[in-house]
Amino acid sequence: MPREKTALKAVGMALDAETRVHDDHHVSLRLWLRLLACTNQIESRVRQSLQSSFDTTLPRFDLMAQLERAPQGLKMSELSQRMMVTGGNVTGITDGLEKEGMVVREVDSTDRRVNRVKLTAEGERQFRRMAAEHERWIVDLLGPLALRQKKQLMELLGGLKEHLAGDNGV
Amino acid sequence: MPREKTALKAVGMALDAETRVHDDHHVSLRLWLRLLACTNQIESRVRQSLQSSFDTTLPRFDLMAQLERAPQGLKMSELSQRMMVTGGNVTGITDGLEKEGMVVREVDSTDRRVNRVKLTAEGERQFRRMAAEHERWIVDLLGPLALRQKKQLMELLGGLKEHLAGDNGV
Repeated sequence: MPREKTALKAVGMALDAETRVHDDHHVSLRLWLRLLACTNQIESRVRQSLQSSFDTTLPRFDLMAQLERAPQGLKMSELSQRMMVTGGNVTGITDGLEKEGMVVREVDSTDRRVNRVKLTAEGERQFRRMAAEHERWIVDLLGPLALRQKKQLMELLGGLKEHLAGDNGV
Repeated sequence: MPREKTALKAVGMALDAETRVHDDHHVSLRLWLRLLACTNQIESRVRQSLQSSFDTTLPRFDLMAQLERAPQGLKMSELSQRMMVTGGNVTGITDGLEKEGMVVREVDSTDRRVNRVKLTAEGERQFRRMAAEHERWIVDLLGPLALRQKKQLMELLGGLKEHLAGDNGV
């Protein structure tokens, strides 16, 4: 009965394909929840440590980190775009840091309507001190992963990141 | 000059070890930033899609998802603990969903001082409709990863998640 056998095989293949799709959807959803859980855990530990060790917040640390990478300073709009964490009002944080002498607002040399925010020497010094501790926390939190596994994760997430950055619709 | 050779070798090994440590710290920090960037991107896409497709927010969706997994209902304290995303006030969201008939507060049968929140039949129906779409978005967003790569990520992040859950100090 070759025809029946072929039909049965087709049904079998269709079922396999369906299982694969179902499996893939299921894994995708679980993977997203796991990504979210890991990120939340690490973020929450870092928030706690910044608070207890430096009496500061993650958005403040993040803002200073963005400025440290931009010695020429950043416009407020650029600063907002580059922030990696939520939960802070960029203008409010900048005002606070300016009062403490950690950052300074300077009029842009080419466009006098634009302000650029820069770290002061003191801000840089304080940021470096926090960044060294922050690096130790991250190394600790990622402790169970071997260097080889971290590099594997970097590569897998690298492909994903590129796709997410290039893709405009969901 | 065997002694000199040994000394040189020791210096070489120390330098190698230092490079490895430096490399590991560097990779750890970059991996954390990449994890954060991917999670932020996906989360922000999901927030946008929930808004445009269902005129709802991620914390609302998250709260309903937690209730869907707990048919016996959840105390407010349990609900707060289980939420996966920030940016929402659990009591406020519950009030809103209760007004719309999606959830109901019931007095606990064993302890009359305690309220349990449950999805209503209508809440369950609406949640399922959103969850099906949400799954499609996630599958799309994780599109560039093959099933094999997703499983690899699951495993790598699984080890990390366990470590983070068990570890109390940073």
